[in-house]
Amino acid sequence: MKEQTVPYKIHLAENEIPRRWYNLRADMKEKPEPILNPATKKPITREELLPLFCEECVDQELNETDPFIDIPAEILDFYKMYRPSPLVRAYCLEEALETPAKIYYKFEGGNTSGSHKLNSAAAQAWYAKKQGITRLTTETGAGQWGTALSMACGYFGIDLDVYMVKVSSEQKPYRKAVMETFGARVIPSPSDTTAAGRKILSDNPGTGGSLGCAISEAVEAAMSAGNCRYVLGSVLNHVVLHQSVIGLESKTAMEKYGEYPDIVIGCAGGGSNLGGLMAPFMRDRLRGERNPYFIAVEPASCPSLTRGRYAYDHGDTAGITPLMKMYTLGSRFIPSPNHAGGLRYHGMSSILSKLYHDGLIDEARTAGQTSVFEAATLFAKYEGTLPAPESAHAIKAAVDEAVKCRETGEAKTILFGLTGTGYFDMAAYMSYKSGQMTDYIPTDEDLEAGFAGLL
Amino acid sequence: MKEQTVPYKIHLAENEIPRRWYNLRADMKEKPEPILNPATKKPITREELLPLFCEECVDQELNETDPFIDIPAEILDFYKMYRPSPLVRAYCLEEALETPAKIYYKFEGGNTSGSHKLNSAAAQAWYAKKQGITRLTTETGAGQWGTALSMACGYFGIDLDVYMVKVSSEQKPYRKAVMETFGARVIPSPSDTTAAGRKILSDNPGTGGSLGCAISEAVEAAMSAGNCRYVLGSVLNHVVLHQSVIGLESKTAMEKYGEYPDIVIGCAGGGSNLGGLMAPFMRDRLRGERNPYFIAVEPASCPSLTRGRYAYDHGDTAGITPLMKMYTLGSRFIPSPNHAGGLRYHGMSSILSKLYHDGLIDEARTAGQTSVFEAATLFAKYEGTLPAPESAHAIKAAVDEAVKCRETGEAKTILFGLTGTGYFDMAAYMSYKSGQMTDYIPTDEDLEAGFAGLL
Repeated sequence: MKEQTVPYKIHLAENEIPRRWYNLRADMKEKPEPILNPATKKPITREELLPLFCEECVDQELNETDPFIDIPAEILDFYKMYRPSPLVRAYCLEEALETPAKIYYKFEGGNTSGSHKLNSAAAQAWYAKKQGITRLTTETGAGQWGTALSMACGYFGIDLDVYMVKVSSEQKPYRKAVMETFGARVIPSPSDTTAAGRKILSDNPGTGGSLGCAISEAVEAAMSAGNCRYVLGSVLNHVVLHQSVIGLESKTAMEKYGEYPDIVIGCAGGGSNLGGLMAPFMRDRLRGERNPYFIAVEPASCPSLTRGRYAYDHGDTAGITPLMKMYTLGSRFIPSPNHAGGLRYHGMSSILSKLYHDGLIDEARTAGQTSVFEAATLFAKYEGTLPAPESAHAIKAAVDEAVKCRETGEAKTILFGLTGTGYFDMAAYMSYKSGQMTDYIPTDEDLEAGFAGLL
Repeated sequence: MKEQTVPYKIHLAENEIPRRWYNLRADMKEKPEPILNPATKKPITREELLPLFCEECVDQELNETDPFIDIPAEILDFYKMYRPSPLVRAYCLEEALETPAKIYYKFEGGNTSGSHKLNSAAAQAWYAKKQGITRLTTETGAGQWGTALSMACGYFGIDLDVYMVKVSSEQKPYRKAVMETFGARVIPSPSDTTAAGRKILSDNPGTGGSLGCAISEAVEAAMSAGNCRYVLGSVLNHVVLHQSVIGLESKTAMEKYGEYPDIVIGCAGGGSNLGGLMAPFMRDRLRGERNPYFIAVEPASCPSLTRGRYAYDHGDTAGITPLMKMYTLGSRFIPSPNHAGGLRYHGMSSILSKLYHDGLIDEARTAGQTSVFEAATLFAKYEGTLPAPESAHAIKAAVDEAVKCRETGEAKTILFGLTGTGYFDMAAYMSYKSGQMTDYIPTDEDLEAGFAGLL
């Protein structure tokens, strides 16, 4: 084992939890394109967003000027239940890989939701409560976001309806059970409780649903009920903002030991995890102070950054949600059933899309799921944590970079986001272990079909 | 919320992980009764134990004199992967209960095995490796111990056969998948791979197995193979020794803030968790320095301390294992299918049994599983961690004590062990949530049938 220069796990003190989120857009010279009203195709206004989202979230969504935004005391109190999260030095993995690289990972899976999603769930639930909202709706695919929001709503005493992609709710009854334990109502989507759901059911009888479809239902349910709002767990600007706690804590922890990443790696589904992890490091780059290398990793089955188009698109299937300019496979693209449900989304945060388009995120790469589970199994063995399939995309890239260092002899410092745990993904691990797992790679024709639905 | 006097989570530094385990027996004036050889009924010798257990474990098992035993560097390195574990001040639960009590819990579930079991698994796997043992056998019921040992064996490169109670392996395929991910071989018990298994299968066709039966098989498999040993995850003296890290860290963390528990609460199955948690506090009592009140909580369905006999008994069904004097329901007692599989064991650590017999553990109480899941659900909502059903027995007692404080106005300091998480117990949560859960309480006749098998 290498000489130990930092602890295996760096725990910040409670008073080192960030007091402010960092708003990446404030430091971007080229801002992301504005959100458009789907009806008028003009930039959407605060007033137009207020019926859909909580007021504070709308203001954060549109805020391009304030670099730092205070975290309210009530949210900080909630964060204290599970933050600061540990930054871990992967000594054992480094030894197994015989690499001179120094590998760090920020572990966000140490709470019951099993992922980083709780960072935004806590914020959005509190803002709803503050505004007097008594009910929220959302969608969930793999179930991490739904679980996180269930926890936050249970804690703050808000009713919650979760539209869960039907095929996921059937494959993962235990995820549903966790949400119900925290008091949420879980509705398999498409359902007959919304017009959007009924239309999808009538057009596609027997469909297992999709995230885009569940979003349509959750949005419609929120808009048609009194004192109710919709919340989303990724993609949106204010979600990326909330997730900046991941990066801010990581940077503080590394600075304590004189460390700074040469490479920052995150898996990218909707983009909130990578956006949050890289935020303060990207700030350094935007200000010309440091120049780390940023890598986004996405599943080969849903390659929005690597094979998508940079275009205006809806976030949902039914076309109810505002239009955002982003890398997208088209809101009608139905990704194949990859096991990393949290990365199975056709679009990408407009912030990350802009940064990638402008070359500020250096690289996006894909990984096939069998190679991802190989990396996950290796990581579990040497680091003792069973990762979520989503997180394992970042592990795969970190391992590859560390192996490159072994070959070149460079002792690079690698930081990646370990977003969550895989306790509810054992069916996927069983599939990998039994050799039954296959890689899904969409053909060019599959992609063209998705692009055909673009505006 | 009460004024915050300590952090929500107290994280010790890595160099505060205990360097030595504490051996409770060294300070007991009245020692536990000796272990007997089942053939001769005479105190068992070191030599007689060596074919069964690793050498270092045998020495620890028989050591009644050394109060502190050094933790080898290799085990400390393993501990650094997931220790120190946090000591949590349950501010949110206190507020929900409106209690003046101060509630602390030591959370041992933050590793992939999901429980405290890893503390002894790491030690036993390392001692095996050190001795040149290449294969280990064990049994598992709920799966926490099997998972912990799979992790430790995967890390140290030792082959592992886990005899998993058949009904558990069928109910919990995902637990099995986790163990296999870490490289273990999982054999549903009873199996046709051992004489003990074949006999049980022939006597009870269609049986779902039991922990006692799985122990018989694992012991036989270890004894009949070369360079192989058997390891057990609870009950034994050396396991209680390894678990003392729980209590030692808890005491150090509390001392930092001038705190000391008035009440120490642990769930008790085989006894290693409660034994480990209370160890340094019991030391204070044995030395006449402090006088905390100790409570053991067991399931109403398997009440070894509260309704068992203090007698010599086997640890397994087939009667292969050494005899220990302990509170027991009889090794032939088959507990009803309570959801807290980790507490479904007929006997109890001989150390804890002796302490309870001598009045040094003040109280043992039972809890029915519906009340336990009620406490678990409350805890999840306010503390954000979904507890294992086993751990929830301690939660139930802690909540009851805190409610008593509300009634008397006393601000007692309560410490309990939150041994693990319930991510693999969602079927049980679903049963509770749906109102299908029933309490199993053995009748006096059930118990007499178990006692009839005692020596």
